[in-house]
Amino acid sequence: MPVKGLKVEAASIDPGHDAVILNPRDAEHLGVVAGLRASVVCRGRGVGAVVIVDPRVPERVAQLTKGLVERLGDCDTVDVHPIDVPPSFDAFKKRLSGARLSAAEYKMLIADIVAGYYDDAQIASFLVSQLYSKLADEELEHLIRAMVETGEVVKFGEPVYDVHSIGGVPGNSKVALLVVPIVASRGLLIPKTSSRAITSPAGTADTMEVLAKVAFKPQELHDMALRARGLIVWGGALNLAPADDIFVRVERRIGVDPPTQMVASILAKKLAMSVSRLVIDLPTGRGAKVQDESEAELLASMFLAQAGRLNIAMRVAITFGGEPIGFSVGPALEAREALQTLMKGDGASSLVEKACSLAGLVFELGGVVPRGRGYSLACEILRSGAAYRKFREIIEVQEGDPDIKPEDIKLAPKQFTLEAPRDGIVTMIDNRAISLAARAAGAPEDKGAGIQLHVKTGYRVRKGDPLLTIYASSDTRLHEAVRLLDEYNAVLIEGVVVKVLP
Amino acid sequence: MPVKGLKVEAASIDPGHDAVILNPRDAEHLGVVAGLRASVVCRGRGVGAVVIVDPRVPERVAQLTKGLVERLGDCDTVDVHPIDVPPSFDAFKKRLSGARLSAAEYKMLIADIVAGYYDDAQIASFLVSQLYSKLADEELEHLIRAMVETGEVVKFGEPVYDVHSIGGVPGNSKVALLVVPIVASRGLLIPKTSSRAITSPAGTADTMEVLAKVAFKPQELHDMALRARGLIVWGGALNLAPADDIFVRVERRIGVDPPTQMVASILAKKLAMSVSRLVIDLPTGRGAKVQDESEAELLASMFLAQAGRLNIAMRVAITFGGEPIGFSVGPALEAREALQTLMKGDGASSLVEKACSLAGLVFELGGVVPRGRGYSLACEILRSGAAYRKFREIIEVQEGDPDIKPEDIKLAPKQFTLEAPRDGIVTMIDNRAISLAARAAGAPEDKGAGIQLHVKTGYRVRKGDPLLTIYASSDTRLHEAVRLLDEYNAVLIEGVVVKVLP
Repeated sequence: MPVKGLKVEAASIDPGHDAVILNPRDAEHLGVVAGLRASVVCRGRGVGAVVIVDPRVPERVAQLTKGLVERLGDCDTVDVHPIDVPPSFDAFKKRLSGARLSAAEYKMLIADIVAGYYDDAQIASFLVSQLYSKLADEELEHLIRAMVETGEVVKFGEPVYDVHSIGGVPGNSKVALLVVPIVASRGLLIPKTSSRAITSPAGTADTMEVLAKVAFKPQELHDMALRARGLIVWGGALNLAPADDIFVRVERRIGVDPPTQMVASILAKKLAMSVSRLVIDLPTGRGAKVQDESEAELLASMFLAQAGRLNIAMRVAITFGGEPIGFSVGPALEAREALQTLMKGDGASSLVEKACSLAGLVFELGGVVPRGRGYSLACEILRSGAAYRKFREIIEVQEGDPDIKPEDIKLAPKQFTLEAPRDGIVTMIDNRAISLAARAAGAPEDKGAGIQLHVKTGYRVRKGDPLLTIYASSDTRLHEAVRLLDEYNAVLIEGVVVKVLP
Repeated sequence: MPVKGLKVEAASIDPGHDAVILNPRDAEHLGVVAGLRASVVCRGRGVGAVVIVDPRVPERVAQLTKGLVERLGDCDTVDVHPIDVPPSFDAFKKRLSGARLSAAEYKMLIADIVAGYYDDAQIASFLVSQLYSKLADEELEHLIRAMVETGEVVKFGEPVYDVHSIGGVPGNSKVALLVVPIVASRGLLIPKTSSRAITSPAGTADTMEVLAKVAFKPQELHDMALRARGLIVWGGALNLAPADDIFVRVERRIGVDPPTQMVASILAKKLAMSVSRLVIDLPTGRGAKVQDESEAELLASMFLAQAGRLNIAMRVAITFGGEPIGFSVGPALEAREALQTLMKGDGASSLVEKACSLAGLVFELGGVVPRGRGYSLACEILRSGAAYRKFREIIEVQEGDPDIKPEDIKLAPKQFTLEAPRDGIVTMIDNRAISLAARAAGAPEDKGAGIQLHVKTGYRVRKGDPLLTIYASSDTRLHEAVRLLDEYNAVLIEGVVVKVLP
């Protein structure tokens, strides 16, 4: 039975998820045992929350956790209803059985997930089902549209451009800091929203935050974008396709990231920003998210199939992702390298070529230049300083200091430089080892932590030459990072003479 | 970093799962955010628990939930270690990728699950993976053995017999109350452990509990079994294959029950009781767990494949499960019907024939009679009163009153009798509707609640004849049960003349 008119209090505990804490008697009336979900209703709107029982809570009181209070808004009293199974549970079970769901079924399912009516076990089941029983193109479209419709949509009244990298390669977060100003300097509207790092040492939002604010409200973002033509902001606070945030949290727990859900999540976030011209970057190679070209092509075909359905003009670039991009890994180090490159109009070839290629594809999508001519235009914009001038505008509109210099950027105080153990050629820099070590050093939470590379694959080194420098805020973290680099043999150096036969 | 030597206090809250509640500072030192898992270590043994943060908890104190205190035993202080990923996480991911796991990998995985190192999202993923990427026979054996090895094993030093029904048909819980005394009366050892109802209106343990105690310790159970030769007890308190309890809890949340996991869970529980001669009952039909014979045969072949590997002499009976067994549904009503049948030596044919068939197969497995002769021996034992005398012994050894009469059994006070709306023949009694309505009436928690049928399929009825009587403890519950029977059209009556053409 529902229990009605419970007085709202703020909960003291943080269980890590939305929860309503009730006196055992009220929980008994409700008929929901601790650990299961109930719907907490305020002014007709219900939000799912886990029931926790505590005899210290007075009867007729509902203690709500912080996140729940934020989601429900200002309520003096709430009603609590049992959720036996979510209304869309039949659709959920149908999906698990491998059958196709209709657009209406996806809409119900995603709305219930966003409302908090599904628990992590159920959400994990939905995700894992996609690993085995792939969503057909039509279903994937339904899922994407359902994810868009259950959140905010920001409209601009003109074509919106974007570049999105699926990530997974250390050092990649800074690429957008070049691409966005290059594109925006030609007047195309590119209000890029991005995530913070999930499993990597830096997300684009983390890196941009070294130079400017990244958290804005939808209306602010809209106005700022129209002023500067380009933005690099955090998408997390905007309630764009909020189901994605829930899926990402559970994906991290179960260590899987089904390709169909990846496509759905990326495109839903883009549609929520009204993006209609999109370049997708699939970094591919050893230790990247996508290991080889055939896998990348499969993923590309999934993106392109949806592009047609969703009216997005799209190009997909499969890029080299077999080693870190540029020489820096970690928010502050990457922000510094991006700023240096923009100011100088040139820099590491792996960074400059990638940024110009992606920006060039955007120009071609926008009809600024014919196909095949975008790259050189982008390089010219970077070289001429126009990109740097636009970047200053973007920093300014995002409330940062446009006069910031690379040497102003604060790095972590403790450093350790790894040296070449022998003469030879660098034959491999391991993405995973670099990511793990940079995270162990403290990135991305500690913005000054990370790894500065001094060599890349193909460099000739002599014994004792510096290979890379780790930045961390404590000796413990520094040592852990060194240990990981060592354990994983992060930088491989091989002799010029590989083998001599008798 | 681990936090060490925290003073143990009892938690006030019940979050529905094992949890450790920490001051925010200790949680920060630990480096685990609220909602994720940590290992709570006492005397070298670690148990996984969810971290909850509460500023009311003093620093250097770990508040432990009730279940966690029970699992850890008496500890004044505990250490808390972060669990980044469980040690067996590579094996877990391998399973999700569809690859086969070795015996050692299953052992690690199940040990970590039992230790509480996996959360519900991860456990759900493991279960759902089995829906799509079936376990090979060899893997299933590894899983079963791992489930046995991570719990208690009760040994008897002589062959142990058992009969297990996969359930799913209302009224089925009472069958064991006939089978066990029939088998035990010939001296075969049949210490049957069973579950309480999960989604049905009565489990065998619920029904037996109307007549006797069912919760015992492993040593008590061992001694009682050797005295009475037969037992009907609850398996839940015995720590037999404890992974099963975890799987069942998550299966209920996600509404799936993968066949391989069902086979694993049943056989692991049996091996934990040292069962070596086993009859499996697969009730099959509309509204049962198994819908048709081909599905039943597939399941039977999975059981038989494992029987060979696990050295269990096994026979599988596919039985009619298209309508309720006997005339009663719910613990007290079923206990009453079982007792009546045992005392009289006869009763509803669907009950008597099923019990004698299953007991007969046990006799044949045990070499008591040649194949094909078990059924008549079992019927004779029932008819002669020998089964009733043995049942009295079993009740007595389980601390119940052997002199209990059917009319002593207390039923719920509120009743409603459904009448035939027309003349005709009963063509269908819907299992699901009967189960739902009996549960709505209060079964199995309210032992006196349930449904007494007055007709079965094939009965001729006249308008106004009683079809069934619902028993409940409150009018609200009674009305809800009536509503469900009505909504689902639980008893279908069709005219003798189905159609007349012009």
